[in-house]
Amino acid sequence: MCTRLGIILIFLNLAAVSPKPFTRDAQLTPATCQACHPIDVEKINIHLVPHSHDDVGWLKTVDQYYYGNQKRIQYAGVQYIISSSIQALIGHPDRRYIQVETAFFWKWWQHQEDALKRQVIELVNNGQLEIINGAWSMNDEAASHYQSTIDQFTWGFRFLNDTFGDCGRPKVGWQIDPFGHSREHASLMTQLGFQGLVIGRLDYRDKMKRRLDKNLDFVWRGSANLNNSEIFTTMFPDFYVTIDGYCFDVLCNVEPIVDDEKNPDYNLKKKVEGFANKMDQYESYYQTTQFLVPMGGDFNYQAAEINFSNLDKLINGFKAHKKYNVFYSTPSCYIKAVNDEIARRSLTLRKKTDDFFPYASEKHAYWTGYFTSRPTSKRFERTGNNILQAMKQLVTFSRVKGDDRESSITGLREAMGIMQHHDAITGTEKAAVAKDYARLLTQAIKDAEAPAGVIIGNLLKKSFQNDVDLKLSTCLLANGGGGGGFVGKLTHYVRLPVEGDNFKISGPDGDEIYDVVHSMSKFDHVKESLKPTSKNLVFAAKEIPPLGIKLYYVEKIEGEEEFRAFETLSENDYFGTDENGFTIDTNTGRLNSVTINGLTLNITQDFMYYQGYSSGGRVSGAYVFRTTDKQAKLITSEKLEVKFIKGKLVDEVLQVYSPEVSQVIRVYKDDSGFIEFDWLVGNLQQDSNAGKEVITRFAVQNFSNKGVFYTDSNGREQIRRELNKRSDYDYDATDDPISSNYYPVTSKIVVKDEERNLEVAVLNDRAQGGSSLGDGVIELMVHRRLVRDDGFGVGEALKEDEYGKGLYARGQHYLVFGPITTEDDGEKSAAAIERDLARKKLLAPWVLAVASTEGPFSSLENTKSFINFKFAGLTRPLPENVHLLTLEPWRDDTYLLRLEHVMEKGEDAVLSKPVVVDIENLFTGFQISAIGETTLGANQWLDDYEREEKLVWNDNAPTPWMTLDENDPLKIELHPMQIRTFIIRVEAK
Amino acid sequence: MCTRLGIILIFLNLAAVSPKPFTRDAQLTPATCQACHPIDVEKINIHLVPHSHDDVGWLKTVDQYYYGNQKRIQYAGVQYIISSSIQALIGHPDRRYIQVETAFFWKWWQHQEDALKRQVIELVNNGQLEIINGAWSMNDEAASHYQSTIDQFTWGFRFLNDTFGDCGRPKVGWQIDPFGHSREHASLMTQLGFQGLVIGRLDYRDKMKRRLDKNLDFVWRGSANLNNSEIFTTMFPDFYVTIDGYCFDVLCNVEPIVDDEKNPDYNLKKKVEGFANKMDQYESYYQTTQFLVPMGGDFNYQAAEINFSNLDKLINGFKAHKKYNVFYSTPSCYIKAVNDEIARRSLTLRKKTDDFFPYASEKHAYWTGYFTSRPTSKRFERTGNNILQAMKQLVTFSRVKGDDRESSITGLREAMGIMQHHDAITGTEKAAVAKDYARLLTQAIKDAEAPAGVIIGNLLKKSFQNDVDLKLSTCLLANGGGGGGFVGKLTHYVRLPVEGDNFKISGPDGDEIYDVVHSMSKFDHVKESLKPTSKNLVFAAKEIPPLGIKLYYVEKIEGEEEFRAFETLSENDYFGTDENGFTIDTNTGRLNSVTINGLTLNITQDFMYYQGYSSGGRVSGAYVFRTTDKQAKLITSEKLEVKFIKGKLVDEVLQVYSPEVSQVIRVYKDDSGFIEFDWLVGNLQQDSNAGKEVITRFAVQNFSNKGVFYTDSNGREQIRRELNKRSDYDYDATDDPISSNYYPVTSKIVVKDEERNLEVAVLNDRAQGGSSLGDGVIELMVHRRLVRDDGFGVGEALKEDEYGKGLYARGQHYLVFGPITTEDDGEKSAAAIERDLARKKLLAPWVLAVASTEGPFSSLENTKSFINFKFAGLTRPLPENVHLLTLEPWRDDTYLLRLEHVMEKGEDAVLSKPVVVDIENLFTGFQISAIGETTLGANQWLDDYEREEKLVWNDNAPTPWMTLDENDPLKIELHPMQIRTFIIRVEAK
Repeated sequence: MCTRLGIILIFLNLAAVSPKPFTRDAQLTPATCQACHPIDVEKINIHLVPHSHDDVGWLKTVDQYYYGNQKRIQYAGVQYIISSSIQALIGHPDRRYIQVETAFFWKWWQHQEDALKRQVIELVNNGQLEIINGAWSMNDEAASHYQSTIDQFTWGFRFLNDTFGDCGRPKVGWQIDPFGHSREHASLMTQLGFQGLVIGRLDYRDKMKRRLDKNLDFVWRGSANLNNSEIFTTMFPDFYVTIDGYCFDVLCNVEPIVDDEKNPDYNLKKKVEGFANKMDQYESYYQTTQFLVPMGGDFNYQAAEINFSNLDKLINGFKAHKKYNVFYSTPSCYIKAVNDEIARRSLTLRKKTDDFFPYASEKHAYWTGYFTSRPTSKRFERTGNNILQAMKQLVTFSRVKGDDRESSITGLREAMGIMQHHDAITGTEKAAVAKDYARLLTQAIKDAEAPAGVIIGNLLKKSFQNDVDLKLSTCLLANGGGGGGFVGKLTHYVRLPVEGDNFKISGPDGDEIYDVVHSMSKFDHVKESLKPTSKNLVFAAKEIPPLGIKLYYVEKIEGEEEFRAFETLSENDYFGTDENGFTIDTNTGRLNSVTINGLTLNITQDFMYYQGYSSGGRVSGAYVFRTTDKQAKLITSEKLEVKFIKGKLVDEVLQVYSPEVSQVIRVYKDDSGFIEFDWLVGNLQQDSNAGKEVITRFAVQNFSNKGVFYTDSNGREQIRRELNKRSDYDYDATDDPISSNYYPVTSKIVVKDEERNLEVAVLNDRAQGGSSLGDGVIELMVHRRLVRDDGFGVGEALKEDEYGKGLYARGQHYLVFGPITTEDDGEKSAAAIERDLARKKLLAPWVLAVASTEGPFSSLENTKSFINFKFAGLTRPLPENVHLLTLEPWRDDTYLLRLEHVMEKGEDAVLSKPVVVDIENLFTGFQISAIGETTLGANQWLDDYEREEKLVWNDNAPTPWMTLDENDPLKIELHPMQIRTFIIRVEAK
Repeated sequence: MCTRLGIILIFLNLAAVSPKPFTRDAQLTPATCQACHPIDVEKINIHLVPHSHDDVGWLKTVDQYYYGNQKRIQYAGVQYIISSSIQALIGHPDRRYIQVETAFFWKWWQHQEDALKRQVIELVNNGQLEIINGAWSMNDEAASHYQSTIDQFTWGFRFLNDTFGDCGRPKVGWQIDPFGHSREHASLMTQLGFQGLVIGRLDYRDKMKRRLDKNLDFVWRGSANLNNSEIFTTMFPDFYVTIDGYCFDVLCNVEPIVDDEKNPDYNLKKKVEGFANKMDQYESYYQTTQFLVPMGGDFNYQAAEINFSNLDKLINGFKAHKKYNVFYSTPSCYIKAVNDEIARRSLTLRKKTDDFFPYASEKHAYWTGYFTSRPTSKRFERTGNNILQAMKQLVTFSRVKGDDRESSITGLREAMGIMQHHDAITGTEKAAVAKDYARLLTQAIKDAEAPAGVIIGNLLKKSFQNDVDLKLSTCLLANGGGGGGFVGKLTHYVRLPVEGDNFKISGPDGDEIYDVVHSMSKFDHVKESLKPTSKNLVFAAKEIPPLGIKLYYVEKIEGEEEFRAFETLSENDYFGTDENGFTIDTNTGRLNSVTINGLTLNITQDFMYYQGYSSGGRVSGAYVFRTTDKQAKLITSEKLEVKFIKGKLVDEVLQVYSPEVSQVIRVYKDDSGFIEFDWLVGNLQQDSNAGKEVITRFAVQNFSNKGVFYTDSNGREQIRRELNKRSDYDYDATDDPISSNYYPVTSKIVVKDEERNLEVAVLNDRAQGGSSLGDGVIELMVHRRLVRDDGFGVGEALKEDEYGKGLYARGQHYLVFGPITTEDDGEKSAAAIERDLARKKLLAPWVLAVASTEGPFSSLENTKSFINFKFAGLTRPLPENVHLLTLEPWRDDTYLLRLEHVMEKGEDAVLSKPVVVDIENLFTGFQISAIGETTLGANQWLDDYEREEKLVWNDNAPTPWMTLDENDPLKIELHPMQIRTFIIRVEAK
């Protein structure tokens, strides 16, 4: 905690103009780099896909996996996998291999000699080494946010493009291990220009049915809003690992193939027969004569020659086989072959429009626990994104001015890529690995922030003679600061931990009023009187300019004022304003009603928990949420101890449930539209040696949503959920009525009473599992502490100890309600409010503190004049429904810019309309001298992409993406949910 | 057993003339293919030598090692080692690797694609992949015979030369694992043109002393006879495996090097320090600043990238090291560096003139058991050599005539190469592997013999109109037939198993007399009456022409004659002739006296045994011979049961000692110079759960050899041994007085009474361990059966069961005595007799049988005329002291010819003189149209070799080898113990 306060810098958001696209970059020129072995139309074609599934951290840290140390935990060294696989391709032109995780590949590439690098490039060019997926990691699809998914694909592509040019451009999504598959991810894959997507984990009944229905290959529509979001999707007939008896890997215990008939151990014939028998079994699963057969598994191919030399022999053993044509292949070759055959034989693929959540791998194994597992890690990842976006913008401004600090953010780009991994943000890694992720992200944040002081100083230097390094103290960040990317003017409530009660806050608009309020801490639970330091200073930084900076001077002044916390509620106590507020039930200490925009609803809220099942069979663990409870149990049925403050800016009520749970319910008096629930849950005791899985539950009285609720897909489109029902297959909720109805809530969960045109939403600040198990009821799981491992490999119970007790997690929920549909009359829909609030919270202003005794601030007078300077990155706010998704330095003198329409169709009468953004002269620091549009991953010009031959499925040719108006390229049209990606060249103004 | 007899073909030996050597073969042109990293003269240079020690069979069969199956026995697959090592070199120009065992490399090469083969050739040419040793296997040096050692180097070199040309020519001997090192092997290395030799296993006290004396590098004189036999020899400072903590191999449990300083697991600095500490320890061992440090071990480098990528990091970690220059190297680079430094600093290396037997790895661990282990396997290997030499000659004659059958002998060349391996002929492999060696050799012999009938038929076809396939039955071979290479006329006693007593034997010289004698069998031991089939027909095939064929017709005739075996000895019984014979003590049933060339000595002989130690500590096992017996125990002290026969050709006495041991002592009446001891030992019971190690002991009365005896080195030069003494280091025989005095006896063991000018020798038919533990006493260990594993890896007790009992072994000893030195008066020395006898037994005539009812032999008359034809390969016998060591088909229309002087200096007044052999018109089937002399391995022209820059040690430049007289190239001069190797081109006559 910082006890000395100085300047607070508040930094926000950016977007410019020029007529001509770039000259084509040679590396971006489309080409064919694929080398597929021929299909035999008279036979069944077995596409053997050699692959290694290399988790970017799981049982070992990402570095341990790379180097291969900590062998006793797991024998896995990715440096060897990549090296030996590549080595095994050289001189063996028939062999193929796919490279997936760019985080590892990049690490590896740094260490290689030029001679080998040239060989690798050749392998990529000749199609033996196919780069697939290409993202920094194989991201989770439940807890991940689309902004970070886009970023981590973009950064992976950037490396691949710089290294390999066009032949290294991935064409296929490869998501064989994430625990369920999101529709938004499929949509992003289409926008990346991918030809197809390979998925891995879906409900076992779904998989069985798809086998019976010959529906392993299908067409998936990833967006309900975009015209062009269909993608060919496929999955393996079994799991993603090599079939039994054919894993020759160093990790497997299979005898090698002996192909010398004179050898007493000759076994080739038997091996061929066994393999053919397995293929016979697959025959009923497929419409086409193309089978996708994985040859690999977790950390396979550490000694790749072992794999390849035996596969060579197996393939060779099939040379004269009458039924099967067996050969090395890749997913893209598979997709091409299926596409050809579909056309040739006029077959039709089925379609799918929703997602693959939740994933159950077998009875009682609903992988819905990981939606919430490791809540602090899930929040820290969001903080990382916040800072990354802010720093990308700061670095952009700085580079335009000639001071290139891009290298400082590389580490954070990478760390955020790693955090997206399906054992990172998911919370399904070992404790030591979670700690290492935190270490990596902490270090990356530190490195990224390092030049912030100099950059901000320079942005402000008009006021000063010399370069200014503000020597920012970043200690406030630990309390949840953040930054970046909001394009409208914004009010932000700054909370600073303080000692003392009396302050003077000087800003550009004069002195600010403030409150000193509770700083909820773990100590509250032990019912000691609050510590002197457990106070926060709150004030409102108002009208922060778009992509802007605003400064305040905070000084502690003489005199002690009592900290006015009250402990006795009266029935008349109302917190907030007439427009926005809430009441507490004096008998229970719990929420009673909420008023938003003048409408009052009887809404109760309580903390409850499920006992995580821990007896025989499948137990609740890091992945799986399982409980035999019929309904959630109250944390306490007692009247809550409460304390409250009625401040000048904020009213808030602290509720203490138990040593495990407390909460502050808060309303800002001059803000509008939501009530904040600031919860602190931890020190969870596992009751009767069972897990404890804590939920917050909101219940709206007299509300009818008829078993229907909505959860977001990766923070973007909403997906309709129906209690106890799946769209694609029969399923009986009786066994696990709670966990089987859990869905990932990355941003918000919504219930709608269509008759009342009333929508109630709870937004969160990190991904959580949630559901609506009854009318008007919303629950979100906030924390879990379990006693046993659920048997899916992590090998540890999810305990999250801290100082010998269960780790505390703190977070916010934002309750919003309002009309489902609106007329074009100025009233905003609930959805519009939610989307605005979600962005403000996701990309909150970044609060930076400077010690006031150093540098230019050593003199109070200097400081004061300094404060009067405001910086705005944009000359004007962007339209309300447009988001500056990306502004970051790109290659050479170019920058990457993404604009996004934030509304879905029909969400709001006004804001859901298409919009045109004029980006000419939009940015204060520079103007755009050239602009070119690319696919979402910025690795191919959009018009090049459009010129490529597209795969047509079911006679349904893809709609071209909207492209720039050559006459007016800086007027960017955006349709609902559309993201457009540009590489711009700029000139400093 | 064959019960139907037909023609017996006896085949013997060959040598021609032409003036000009060949045009140079491009592949034989000398070149520099070495790429050594630079030496830093200011630092200590650490030569890291990446290597994999790949036994050609041991715990698994050679094929299992190649393929890598039977993982549960050992995780070892050589195909992966070679592939992955080669792959790891590509694109990494700094890396080096040495390839040793050509048996494996050849197997591997067959399976590779052309693209990869080209890469491998490039790696050989650029010096990254150094071929070293190059023999088919890393042969044993104790039990192996020099002829087979030469053959297996030659065949390995042939493949390497055909594949890689000059850069694939090995320059260094690499014998890091054989269990002791022979002087003859060092001599052969010099003759191969090697620059140096790396050895591995020597007595632990010797090694310790050499460390103290800075004597790890030394100059070894391999021959007491040849002028030019010094070779630089070195050994590792420790064992041949990577030092502790630096084995990154997939088989080791060492954590990889983490070289990223930001990584929490960073360990490079610690690894560098640890390695430097170890080098500090080596510093006192060396005269020079060059250290030879192995980076490898048994079956290491199966996933070579793991090894190399970590070594890269280690080397990189030393980049700025002040004391050590660490780099990838090879033994030849090491030798070059040492040679440079020795010259630069005028250092002197010590010399050695004897050998490194016996090898003790620690107290009580004398590796002298393997000299005898698996006696049947050791004999079978000799049989294989016999047949290989015969078939090489037959194939030569056939090819000269236009019928190329060379491919039939390839398998036997290879199998014999495998048999030389230091876990094959040594008997130190697992039982299942021994069985597989037998399978391989059996199959190879079958394949090699397959065309023998056609070839012989064609050689004889002058007598017949059509091609003749004699359809040879080879069943007799199982009884110990053999073939090839004797260049004088020869009498051979043919022994055929028969039923019946009356026969007619028709040969070219008329009817032959015969005996029907004992066929000693296992049944003798159970004292049943002899079975009817347990008889042998013996007759003398006389005057077999040099490299010739002679035929006999054997028919069974009517009438039963009694098998005249007597059981009661009288004191007057004398067996043999006045010149050669023996007497048996009627009280004991044991040998009493022996007469040879008219001289009678009182010589006794008995079978005894040692109890193999099997309690705590190191026990007697496949490798180690250990006993706590102070002296050998008698098999029986009882009077022996004897049976005897006095025949027309042979007298013999069958002695039954026990169910375990029996023997026939035999003398041929018209032969001269030796008495034969035909022993059968088996069914050994381990007394009191200890091993049983059976010896035969000859004791000459009144004989003074003063603790000195002589054993041969790989069948060639004799080495002087002195009881309880070592030449190079202090040693105390008290602990293990017997086993520490055991030496390998490959061909003969000799004691000399200098005062009486009397030498007594025992020759054997396979390698055995032997010693002379008292005056006039010679012992040879014939068989051993043990109860425990001796802990050096094989993991099985040496039990050799057969039908649930201990395996029987049968073999011969030949007792010879005569004068040590002779005058030039026609009397032969004992040594001359011994050498003649040894050759006759090693390369015995090959007896082949044809069923008489088929083919040209269906008519008795045809057969008889056939018999009258004789074939001789040579127009004249070679000089008595010259051996046709090699005659075999070579590349294209060339043949490989080796001539050898078989005597040592001073062994015989006449025969030890230099001799000139005229090979013009020597062969009957062809004349020599061109001749070129090569180094011993036939992979480099001798004059090219002489033109190469030679390494000079101790200012002592090597003497050039004798080369052909350009004016008279077919007159070949040979000095004692000299072998000369020629590639000849021939024209059929």
